[in-house]
Amino acid sequence: MSRASACPLAERLGIALPIIQAPMAGVQGSALALAVMQAGGLGSLPAAALTPELLRAELARLRQAGRPYNVNFFCHTPPLPDPAREAAWRASLAPYYAEYDIDATGIAAGAGRSPFSAELADLLEDYRPPVVSFHFGLPSPALMDRLRGWGSRILSSATTVEEALWLERHGVDAVIAQGLEAGGHRGFFLTRDVGTQLGTFALLPQIVSAVRVPVIAAGGIVDAQTVAAAFALGASGVQAGTAYLLCPETSTSAVHRAALLAAAPSQLKSQAPAGPRSDTALTTLFTGGAARGIVNRAMRELGALNNAAPAFPLATAAIAPLRAAAEQAGRGDFSPLWCGQNARGCRAVPAAEITRSLAAGLPA
Amino acid sequence: MSRASACPLAERLGIALPIIQAPMAGVQGSALALAVMQAGGLGSLPAAALTPELLRAELARLRQAGRPYNVNFFCHTPPLPDPAREAAWRASLAPYYAEYDIDATGIAAGAGRSPFSAELADLLEDYRPPVVSFHFGLPSPALMDRLRGWGSRILSSATTVEEALWLERHGVDAVIAQGLEAGGHRGFFLTRDVGTQLGTFALLPQIVSAVRVPVIAAGGIVDAQTVAAAFALGASGVQAGTAYLLCPETSTSAVHRAALLAAAPSQLKSQAPAGPRSDTALTTLFTGGAARGIVNRAMRELGALNNAAPAFPLATAAIAPLRAAAEQAGRGDFSPLWCGQNARGCRAVPAAEITRSLAAGLPA
Repeated sequence: MSRASACPLAERLGIALPIIQAPMAGVQGSALALAVMQAGGLGSLPAAALTPELLRAELARLRQAGRPYNVNFFCHTPPLPDPAREAAWRASLAPYYAEYDIDATGIAAGAGRSPFSAELADLLEDYRPPVVSFHFGLPSPALMDRLRGWGSRILSSATTVEEALWLERHGVDAVIAQGLEAGGHRGFFLTRDVGTQLGTFALLPQIVSAVRVPVIAAGGIVDAQTVAAAFALGASGVQAGTAYLLCPETSTSAVHRAALLAAAPSQLKSQAPAGPRSDTALTTLFTGGAARGIVNRAMRELGALNNAAPAFPLATAAIAPLRAAAEQAGRGDFSPLWCGQNARGCRAVPAAEITRSLAAGLPA
Repeated sequence: MSRASACPLAERLGIALPIIQAPMAGVQGSALALAVMQAGGLGSLPAAALTPELLRAELARLRQAGRPYNVNFFCHTPPLPDPAREAAWRASLAPYYAEYDIDATGIAAGAGRSPFSAELADLLEDYRPPVVSFHFGLPSPALMDRLRGWGSRILSSATTVEEALWLERHGVDAVIAQGLEAGGHRGFFLTRDVGTQLGTFALLPQIVSAVRVPVIAAGGIVDAQTVAAAFALGASGVQAGTAYLLCPETSTSAVHRAALLAAAPSQLKSQAPAGPRSDTALTTLFTGGAARGIVNRAMRELGALNNAAPAFPLATAAIAPLRAAAEQAGRGDFSPLWCGQNARGCRAVPAAEITRSLAAGLPA
């Protein structure tokens, strides 16, 4: 009996290993997904920031591999533009614009990211991806029906037991339990309260107890040991993002790579650390949505959870020129350095090797 | 070979099972500790709020059992009183005082809790407790030497890798890795930043990698499954608090018990929950220190992490009469309802039964 047939989740998704590479917009495309698929896991394409043309090109590459893959979309409700809030926010960034000689009047409002839509479903229909995952909830029942109609399996993230029950009622094939250790955006959609978000160790077993569909653990999954612990807590699969960030198949920026390397000391045993290690925190500064990244200058000086930042995804625009200018100077002071709370698994090795490391923790 | 001799932590502490009952000031005394000791775990006495006379009486009871026990003290630096801050804080509570007809001028400044001291060491010397644990760091090297001199084993909590390394350098026999799922006070002492605190799933394996002494997992430990997961992440032992809160050997208040029962639904599987479940959050309202409790009216209306609250432990005084008046009316609106992020293990059964449930998850 193969491992796939012994594992309901792997069977349901048609993959050899119940290991999902987390979709990470801005740092990866089909290259990382293909490498993970080749190693037996589920590769994921973050589609939210792609133009239709780029999305088609990426889907064509993934389809060609002849293995299951996952395409990820956002389901946020786009906020109404708020010129007063935007102006106040830019005023608070004025000292930084001045420092970098940036003409703030020239900054576009920023299109931001589009949620999943009928147009995107039309596009997807040509490819009928084996798995579609969502962040920030799910699309309308009509769109869900279309995806299910052509056979896509559907996943989404829950950050509370209530969200997991909601996702199950709305027809997901599996729930991703996103503990607050996870890097990148909180997937919450029934709450926005970061103060009541749960760690993986408390969230995962409570969701497993609450729902009947398989549960995928996310948040802190970095190596064989953490995979084994997730299965001990009742997970049917795991999703790992941070662990893949240094792989050669990613497009992780130089400043992001440098920050990750600083956050992932190889061995501390019996050594006093050379300096303070890199902490991560949830921040709204870079998109308006709460997302976990390595603490940098912007987060320290502006406050990581600054309520004045425009709503997701509008905050992206105002900070973009600062990010670009600082990165030009080799600094990640204004960059979203997305990272989970445990960067220990980050290694600059091929994604297949990371996938094999994770697989070593799967139950026999 | 007995389990104790196969387990370095249990051997080091002289107990049969590497299970520590978390010291919980205000809800338990020697009765709970004795019940856990009888079941083979390490019972703990929270000593920070006891008068010397009460402490002596409790120590006498514990000593009589003839088994190892743990006495817990605080190591905070007492803040200087700040009359202006205190007055401003009481002004913000004025509407509640009015609601309950409380004469705010009559509220004493509040002695608060005393940190461990030479006087307390003098008292302890008569009992030479097998284990002494600390919260908020460690006492001075001179006091540590006294405890070690008569053979006490010493434990303390770390909420970051840096704190774990500091504790190891200062001579603890084991480090308690306190993930942010844990109920009650964060034990942090090198940081006060709640935004960078780590979940058990990320904190525990990183501390295990960083230090040589045994590591005790705390935060989310509620049943056999979570104990097994903690050992999968490298723990040598576990500490559980919330799971014991409904035991008959505690003095948990009626409003606290009611809130815990609401937070611990027996089975959600395939049922939509009747209403929103009880969330927990870190709050400074009740003592001035960041501590996790079930969200109640005070936390909702005043903001759980209100920076205006006087420094630990001074905030205890202003809210005390509100707590008393609301509890008289059967409400926990102003009470610290300490609870971890997973109340699933809370059952109104003898502490021995909770201890046996936890022990079922220990490695064979």
